[in-house]
Amino acid sequence: MNNASLRKINPVPLTSVTLDDAFWAPLMEVNRTATLPIQYQQCKTTGRFDGFMWTRESGTTEPHIFWDSDVAKWIEAAGYSLAVKPDPELEKQVDEVVDVMAAAQGPDGYLNMYFQRVQPDKRWTNLRDCHELYCAGHLMEGAVAYFQATGKRKFLDVMCRYADHIAATFGTGEGQKRGYPGHEEIELALVKLFRATGEKKYLDQATYFVNERGRQPHYYDIEAQARGDDPKHWHFGHSYEYCQAHKPIREQDRVVGHAVRAMYLYSGVADVAAETGDASLLEACRTLWKNVTHKQMYVTGGIGPTRANEGFTFDYDLPNESAYAETCASIALVFWAHRMLHLDPRGEYADVMERALYNGVLSGVSRDGEKFFYVNPLTLYPPMFAPHDTFFGGQRQQWFGCACCPPNLARMVASLPLYMYSAGEAEAWVHLYAAGEADIELAAGTVTLTQKTRYPWDGEVTINVQPQPQSVFTLALRIPGWCREASLKVNGRAIDLDPLTKDGYARIKRLWQAGDKVTLSLAMPVERVEANPKVRQDAGRVALQRGPVVYCLEEADNGNDLSAIALPKDAKCTLGKCPEELGAVPMIKAPALRPDAADWNDDLYRPAGGMTKAVTLKAIPYYLWANRTPGEMLVWLTQQ
Amino acid sequence: MNNASLRKINPVPLTSVTLDDAFWAPLMEVNRTATLPIQYQQCKTTGRFDGFMWTRESGTTEPHIFWDSDVAKWIEAAGYSLAVKPDPELEKQVDEVVDVMAAAQGPDGYLNMYFQRVQPDKRWTNLRDCHELYCAGHLMEGAVAYFQATGKRKFLDVMCRYADHIAATFGTGEGQKRGYPGHEEIELALVKLFRATGEKKYLDQATYFVNERGRQPHYYDIEAQARGDDPKHWHFGHSYEYCQAHKPIREQDRVVGHAVRAMYLYSGVADVAAETGDASLLEACRTLWKNVTHKQMYVTGGIGPTRANEGFTFDYDLPNESAYAETCASIALVFWAHRMLHLDPRGEYADVMERALYNGVLSGVSRDGEKFFYVNPLTLYPPMFAPHDTFFGGQRQQWFGCACCPPNLARMVASLPLYMYSAGEAEAWVHLYAAGEADIELAAGTVTLTQKTRYPWDGEVTINVQPQPQSVFTLALRIPGWCREASLKVNGRAIDLDPLTKDGYARIKRLWQAGDKVTLSLAMPVERVEANPKVRQDAGRVALQRGPVVYCLEEADNGNDLSAIALPKDAKCTLGKCPEELGAVPMIKAPALRPDAADWNDDLYRPAGGMTKAVTLKAIPYYLWANRTPGEMLVWLTQQ
Repeated sequence: MNNASLRKINPVPLTSVTLDDAFWAPLMEVNRTATLPIQYQQCKTTGRFDGFMWTRESGTTEPHIFWDSDVAKWIEAAGYSLAVKPDPELEKQVDEVVDVMAAAQGPDGYLNMYFQRVQPDKRWTNLRDCHELYCAGHLMEGAVAYFQATGKRKFLDVMCRYADHIAATFGTGEGQKRGYPGHEEIELALVKLFRATGEKKYLDQATYFVNERGRQPHYYDIEAQARGDDPKHWHFGHSYEYCQAHKPIREQDRVVGHAVRAMYLYSGVADVAAETGDASLLEACRTLWKNVTHKQMYVTGGIGPTRANEGFTFDYDLPNESAYAETCASIALVFWAHRMLHLDPRGEYADVMERALYNGVLSGVSRDGEKFFYVNPLTLYPPMFAPHDTFFGGQRQQWFGCACCPPNLARMVASLPLYMYSAGEAEAWVHLYAAGEADIELAAGTVTLTQKTRYPWDGEVTINVQPQPQSVFTLALRIPGWCREASLKVNGRAIDLDPLTKDGYARIKRLWQAGDKVTLSLAMPVERVEANPKVRQDAGRVALQRGPVVYCLEEADNGNDLSAIALPKDAKCTLGKCPEELGAVPMIKAPALRPDAADWNDDLYRPAGGMTKAVTLKAIPYYLWANRTPGEMLVWLTQQ
Repeated sequence: MNNASLRKINPVPLTSVTLDDAFWAPLMEVNRTATLPIQYQQCKTTGRFDGFMWTRESGTTEPHIFWDSDVAKWIEAAGYSLAVKPDPELEKQVDEVVDVMAAAQGPDGYLNMYFQRVQPDKRWTNLRDCHELYCAGHLMEGAVAYFQATGKRKFLDVMCRYADHIAATFGTGEGQKRGYPGHEEIELALVKLFRATGEKKYLDQATYFVNERGRQPHYYDIEAQARGDDPKHWHFGHSYEYCQAHKPIREQDRVVGHAVRAMYLYSGVADVAAETGDASLLEACRTLWKNVTHKQMYVTGGIGPTRANEGFTFDYDLPNESAYAETCASIALVFWAHRMLHLDPRGEYADVMERALYNGVLSGVSRDGEKFFYVNPLTLYPPMFAPHDTFFGGQRQQWFGCACCPPNLARMVASLPLYMYSAGEAEAWVHLYAAGEADIELAAGTVTLTQKTRYPWDGEVTINVQPQPQSVFTLALRIPGWCREASLKVNGRAIDLDPLTKDGYARIKRLWQAGDKVTLSLAMPVERVEANPKVRQDAGRVALQRGPVVYCLEEADNGNDLSAIALPKDAKCTLGKCPEELGAVPMIKAPALRPDAADWNDDLYRPAGGMTKAVTLKAIPYYLWANRTPGEMLVWLTQQ
């Protein structure tokens, strides 16, 4: 932590956390054994690895402008996985790809398969549309993760050379281009590179990109004119808002445009704020955070409701059936939330992080780790979209032409332990609950926390505290926003949570000794959640949530015409068990009503008040949907 | 009526019906004094009238491929208006346009401003996309209406020559093209021409077009190949379904594609069935009718939910906010319903006709007759569409680049009396209720019916019957489908309706004498209507309807966030009065609930069951929406 840092706490590194819970640990193992090999194969067979050596004569598919990023995210995921669990074959695969890239790198440090191989004369001529800096950022993230996992510097050095080239090319100095990326990502990556290497110029470069964005005269116009193009002609999007370049970041007060771009930018802005101590950037982040999480976020943590711009529309516009809610966008929301949490340790950030992780992120991957959703709607009505619709057809795909989501999921799941704990000088923070162990470095020494819990299916959490040496510090335990009744015991003695709890965390400051045992009980009844009345799409409806997990109805359990099922206001929800093929996790059941189809004949309209019949509504965790026979799905239920 | 006719009853001609009611008569007068002059000016200033004389040198806008139809529909509307009320200036305007067309007509009878003036070498080369036969059909309808109103034959003769040319060009004979229109319309127009002239070849030509449609090898492919085009490249639509040419009409069992095209086709098919006695065509109509009215129709009588094809999607797909529900489509549904009613006099046809007329048709025109909707959504949420969005912005427009709807409304309103009464040999039929008088020709003589009623605002209807001479016949009075309690008196004596009522009509057969008085009382409480549970968009919601009039909420009366208003199941609806600017017609009021905004702060989600506050819901007739300050509108209300 440098002196100027606004970061109040630091994440506990991946290598200091082990999970042995029944929820995340198996997912991480599936990620390692199924997802990563599949994505390796996909990158290989689609020509992504060979893209760095592609020639017109090779007869293979021409590299795409964002192929580098798919390779990069796979390496990053592999890095996290290797940090947690050694895997010589995986490491060898990465080394081979790194060798290819190192050989492909230009003498000036430039590295981009499309612009080196397909259009070498067009480098850096269209930052707005062409993803060069985006690809560079992902490669940097991959290099940092792989370096931190293995200690191997080769890829890191390659990316430092590329970053040096970028720093020489873009800036306010004489002869430099005053450009910045159309698809943000490099900002946060440069801060990672700065943290990994200590080279302040990478932080300065990130700061430049953040500050330059959205200034007038507009660089995208300047570069378009230099190309001889009409500045109004866009490859993607149709406006500066699309890439958050409509005004300088400190003047932005609504989250607009492409959702992933927005989240990556704000993550980078938070990073720059953290490292430079620029409070005005943090303030901008807070304003934008409030807008997106209070006005533009699905109950699943999905964001960006429309396919039109893969992004945001207007406040409170959250259509369920056509929800885009790109997997990458929820993942990127987690990134941003995690950064905000460390600048400002408040439950609201961890709540959103948790909401996204257990719902809109995890829904992106099938139980077997082999297939992925690009979009995550909250309703599926199969006649609406062709079953073969890659995005909206309601069936996960192994890969996509634009394959951003699968490797993004891979790196998210592989790095999951990183999101659980943080350390202050004399504070050990627990953000997420999952059985496992963490070694947390405080000023006074190391404290080992051992969690036992069946979270998210049960709200009982016990934590064994092993400080070395015994010392006075604060154990900060998150009291989730979803929890309305929590209680605490330390060494079997009940402690009143109220005076301890502030900003979503119970702060237990005492002399901790080896063998201390903390028990946190988070009441976890089924909750009916309603949306702000300004969300017109959810009017008269409720979503079922238990703990952090949002539930949904599937046709497999409830028959079709799910929207016709009404949950009476006074119906009592009980717990059952999902089928074995869904892991036998808790199912929510409730007595509900359906119009009696026989009573309707062939009528389209009739006076209200027809016959209904009693049915048992069966809801499964949203993230598990589409793992069985394809059919309807519904999150927001009519309540009567 | 020819011998083969399947038509069981005949409409009472426009000139035999006068309306002096408070609902339609003022609308017809506004149509004559405001709408027709505005449309005359629009046709004039946009160059539509001059299109028949356009040259590249004229410097004016090049005629569009469907401009003829706008001119034609204006003439047709003028014809109906002149039939009801003489207007020398209007007649002079029509005569001038007719002179232009007569002069422009080719020596072979051909008449089309685009193909005569812009692409003379492309005549009849692209029936699928280019609207030539569609324009011809509208011109024929205009000519017939104008002839019937004024007795002037000039335009009729022009159109007979054109019809002769068409009959010579298209058919199964040696050297003829086996084509048929991409946009149907000429089928019904040729039957009108046949009825007006007695020339059977026009009926034969209509029959040919109906029978040829959708056969293999597909004419659209043949003509595309002849043009040297790829048959897969479409100007409009993307498939044969779009223009109902995917299979022969007798094999079609779902209504698909462009809604107006479909309705015009089925109207023509019903006409051909009527005149040729081909029961297989009537059967096809019945199947298609059942599909569209039982599975694909809005509660307003709107049809065709999507802008994508200006038409149909799949059964029970009736989105409210993005409803296309083109004004022309509802008008064309009225045309078809009217035809079916005469083949098969059943209330279900008149019910749909009435539903569309009082709701989805009339919503297309502003109270002052000067502005028009192309689309008629059932919800308007202003942030969703730019206010300047010509289609979805929620504000009627004076004209459109594709101006089909305004003159279609003009001809519909101008011809309204035509839809009210029919005559069988010894049956006088009353389909719609409105104060006024009709002279109905029966075999035994003329019967004059004089209605007194405040319909649709009141269900009391008295009818004075004046037969000349007195005779035994059946007075068939429609008992609307919306009415759940009707009673009847003849000369003050109550008559049990049950034994008299069949297929939606009370049939009162007796010796009718001058001065007989019939009183029909149709109970008209506010009804809550629910949609078939398969309509997912209306789940948990009700629409308010009173008599034939569907109601809606507007922001002007209820504030914003209309979707947040919930109507309790037990809330009693009462009647109030709409503001004077809406004609002080009945308003529906009900005690309702709204979430308390103050209780929500800035939350997006929270446990259900927050505070609500009591409000008074105020609903106005749907057709009157968007006549005040622009704002939200909602038909389907959440019911709690």
